[in-house]
Amino acid sequence: MPIRVTIWNEFIHERENDAVRAIYPDGIHAAIAAALASADDVAVWCATLGETEHGLAAERLAATDVLIWWGHRAHAQVADAVVGRVAQRVWEGMGLIVLHSGHFSKIFKRLMGTPCALRWREAGERERLWTINPSHPITQGVGAAIELPNSEMYGEPFLVPEPLETVFVSWFEGGEVFRSGLTYRRGAGHIFYFAPGHETYPIYHHPAVQTVLRNAVRWAYNPAPAWTAVSLAPNRPIAEAPEPIEAKGAALHRPGEAGFR
Amino acid sequence: MPIRVTIWNEFIHERENDAVRAIYPDGIHAAIAAALASADDVAVWCATLGETEHGLAAERLAATDVLIWWGHRAHAQVADAVVGRVAQRVWEGMGLIVLHSGHFSKIFKRLMGTPCALRWREAGERERLWTINPSHPITQGVGAAIELPNSEMYGEPFLVPEPLETVFVSWFEGGEVFRSGLTYRRGAGHIFYFAPGHETYPIYHHPAVQTVLRNAVRWAYNPAPAWTAVSLAPNRPIAEAPEPIEAKGAALHRPGEAGFR
Amino acid sequence: MPIRVTIWNEFIHERENDAVRAIYPDGIHAAIAAALASADDVAVWCATLGETEHGLAAERLAATDVLIWWGHRAHAQVADAVVGRVAQRVWEGMGLIVLHSGHFSKIFKRLMGTPCALRWREAGERERLWTINPSHPITQGVGAAIELPNSEMYGEPFLVPEPLETVFVSWFEGGEVFRSGLTYRRGAGHIFYFAPGHETYPIYHHPAVQTVLRNAVRWAYNPAPAWTAVSLAPNRPIAEAPEPIEAKGAALHRPGEAGFR
Amino acid sequence: MPIRVTIWNEFIHERENDAVRAIYPDGIHAAIAAALASADDVAVWCATLGETEHGLAAERLAATDVLIWWGHRAHAQVADAVVGRVAQRVWEGMGLIVLHSGHFSKIFKRLMGTPCALRWREAGERERLWTINPSHPITQGVGAAIELPNSEMYGEPFLVPEPLETVFVSWFEGGEVFRSGLTYRRGAGHIFYFAPGHETYPIYHHPAVQTVLRNAVRWAYNPAPAWTAVSLAPNRPIAEAPEPIEAKGAALHRPGEAGFR
Repeated sequence: MPIRVTIWNEFIHERENDAVRAIYPDGIHAAIAAALASADDVAVWCATLGETEHGLAAERLAATDVLIWWGHRAHAQVADAVVGRVAQRVWEGMGLIVLHSGHFSKIFKRLMGTPCALRWREAGERERLWTINPSHPITQGVGAAIELPNSEMYGEPFLVPEPLETVFVSWFEGGEVFRSGLTYRRGAGHIFYFAPGHETYPIYHHPAVQTVLRNAVRWAYNPAPAWTAVSLAPNRPIAEAPEPIEAKGAALHRPGEAGFR
Repeated sequence: MPIRVTIWNEFIHERENDAVRAIYPDGIHAAIAAALASADDVAVWCATLGETEHGLAAERLAATDVLIWWGHRAHAQVADAVVGRVAQRVWEGMGLIVLHSGHFSKIFKRLMGTPCALRWREAGERERLWTINPSHPITQGVGAAIELPNSEMYGEPFLVPEPLETVFVSWFEGGEVFRSGLTYRRGAGHIFYFAPGHETYPIYHHPAVQTVLRNAVRWAYNPAPAWTAVSLAPNRPIAEAPEPIEAKGAALHRPGEAGFR
Repeated sequence: MPIRVTIWNEFIHERENDAVRAIYPDGIHAAIAAALASADDVAVWCATLGETEHGLAAERLAATDVLIWWGHRAHAQVADAVVGRVAQRVWEGMGLIVLHSGHFSKIFKRLMGTPCALRWREAGERERLWTINPSHPITQGVGAAIELPNSEMYGEPFLVPEPLETVFVSWFEGGEVFRSGLTYRRGAGHIFYFAPGHETYPIYHHPAVQTVLRNAVRWAYNPAPAWTAVSLAPNRPIAEAPEPIEAKGAALHRPGEAGFR
Repeated sequence: MPIRVTIWNEFIHERENDAVRAIYPDGIHAAIAAALASADDVAVWCATLGETEHGLAAERLAATDVLIWWGHRAHAQVADAVVGRVAQRVWEGMGLIVLHSGHFSKIFKRLMGTPCALRWREAGERERLWTINPSHPITQGVGAAIELPNSEMYGEPFLVPEPLETVFVSWFEGGEVFRSGLTYRRGAGHIFYFAPGHETYPIYHHPAVQTVLRNAVRWAYNPAPAWTAVSLAPNRPIAEAPEPIEAKGAALHRPGEAGFR
């Protein structure tokens, strides 16, 4: 069975801005889908902000192994209920790949627990992503560095927790650096933040960026069964303790009563 | 200047449950305050759920170096606005010590980005906290282990991110284990989760637990100036780039325009 | 192509101690090989201390994807040259699974950079390994815990660096705990330390332990090409800098000269 | 009592190379000592390769709270016995600050467990160290970045384990990046690797670099008592188990016998 990928895109700038539409006439999601089309082991769906429930109904998420997220202008318009549902699915094991301006998305901030702030400059300057971890599944086939002739500068400090792995670090023509590829785990979910992707440059048409996206999908996929109980805090009755014990002292809860939340 | 500590307590069970009141007649916060009283370098305030803004107005948080959090039954009653304010202060550098059932508090879940779930059993069984990191500031003076004659069992899996440091791991009479002392960083804020503290046992009267609390306050204190801009994403104008560059290609933003959030 | 596994065993106690021989008549390596036999995607070799170069000649290591290490009594007899060769192969991408008393092996200490000390007691007591990370590839199929009726106690503090992931934590009948499943990365090599395996108990005949071994082999396997240059520090000539620069100031090295080591 | 710092310097290039001597007429150690002189809470010793036991006799190390290491050309001349002694002291709690070309020192490689390789270019190019973690004790007072007009390029991949914290990342004029400030823990010892310091440029005369050195000394200092037993693996006799148990099954060791190493 292929890896089931849902590409979520805000899909606003491509419809409203001529420069962006010229690069992504069918939307950024379509360009990412095209990048994944060469992967035989991947099946792709797309979803956008304007659809009912932003295209992320419970059934769609339940059938998603890896979610790719691109948003920029309308983070605040994403319904909190949808964000909560996506977070739960990540904890259950759905992979999540957050792209570029998605650093400020509700879902990324919720999963990181930090502001996810950074510095930025829109000058079309050169960016070079250095491969910090050449043996990582995400960097296979990209070589020592990825060179982007035009990019938006994202600069440190990047307000995220220390990552599980630093995969890429970027050099910018204007003098800054940025940790542009970082991995995290939250519950059973593998998360990859990948910085490139400003919509006024054709970054998702770059072959090495497309290779990273394909690699990241495979890396983020967790084949373990969905951990649907991941958020529950079950009581372990005294009678079922691994070692025989008897109750001592006072108790707040009656036997079988649920815990407080 | 002393470390300014605010002890926040839900303060419900001590008023409503006879067994709890017998142990903590003035509230758990009062017992923790007493534990900190022997530290010359610490000044203590207390705040409870029932106060205006739960006792955590902006001025109080601005004057707090380390916040200690005890909640259990009323997590849902804590206003989201207060939670957001506390999170911002942690990112700015306020230390946070989350105790026992605080694992399910809104603030801890927000800062961890995970469900923070666990398994539990209220049997008054023996718990032994093993010092995993005897050279850590938090474990100074507690020896190889802390023995609690009666405790609530908290069992793995504990749904938190991999910690910065594992400081304590607990053994339970009934057969379970738990990572009962974990550290994290979120922005400039140092966070310590410490599992002991069930309100039907006199755990905060235990000398070694009190030593941990005093140590943790000092560890969590970050003397760096408050990073009030930690959540901002400032534009770096082209003219101020560290290396001279000129704008190339299309741009979404006009010069000086704020970024999207 | 299958994953090529070499099982290395000291193979002393099974020949010299009747109790051990009764459990592992053909050696611990044979029991581990039998555990891996049900994995269609694995091909197994064995190597022992007494062989030429301890059975770990350069050709054997070059043809090994994952090395499993069991040693206890004769750590000091392992030649430093062989240890250096194994370390280099781990950095190049060979997986390494270190079992039980291998915590004090030269290779584990070299790769950890710490003393790898612990506390121990040989009482045949009950050990229960709790699954801390149920969504990890190594824990698939083992359930919430593995129960060993008889085991050697290994107790904290365990003098290793903070791990990449804590996979198992053990509870012992006598009252201790131990982080009994830990992962690390060193260069391109994935390392798993797994604590069970004392030779006077039939631990490697336990089905769940065998499942862990099979899982760990697959997890430790890095399909990336061997990173044979991992230890080299190549000069990047000025003429080949990604950005055009000219030499400024004094230099220690003449053009093309190798660096110091 | 002040923090007792020993500055270790190979002290070869300053005596043999005119360009280096012009910058550091009394040796790099003297320049670092001068940088620390403004810190009232620090007492400084110096030691060099040419002294007996390289100036690192057991008594000297026992009286050292933080060791600073600068070596380049003569890593191989450092005696293994001295390296082992330094490693033991780090595990016991002595802080270690490894500078620049010390990435290839025996002590750093032993503590990291990796090759510690990197890419390099000696072109006197501009380096800008970005502060990744502005709230870290090591970065206090240095601002957003440190600019070095002339530096040796050190480039990724840098073959070290994932760090505890990434403190600085460097931008180079020639197009590369480097994680130039990284922290680690090994046993009770705090380790800071700081990349700047090529001997043909006056880097240790730079005020912000000196600030980092002073900060790093304070950060690396562990006030806990020296953990002299850190490498021992004591037996825990059955009679002294925290929970009463009786021996079951076979045993390798007689009561009181030492473990194998």
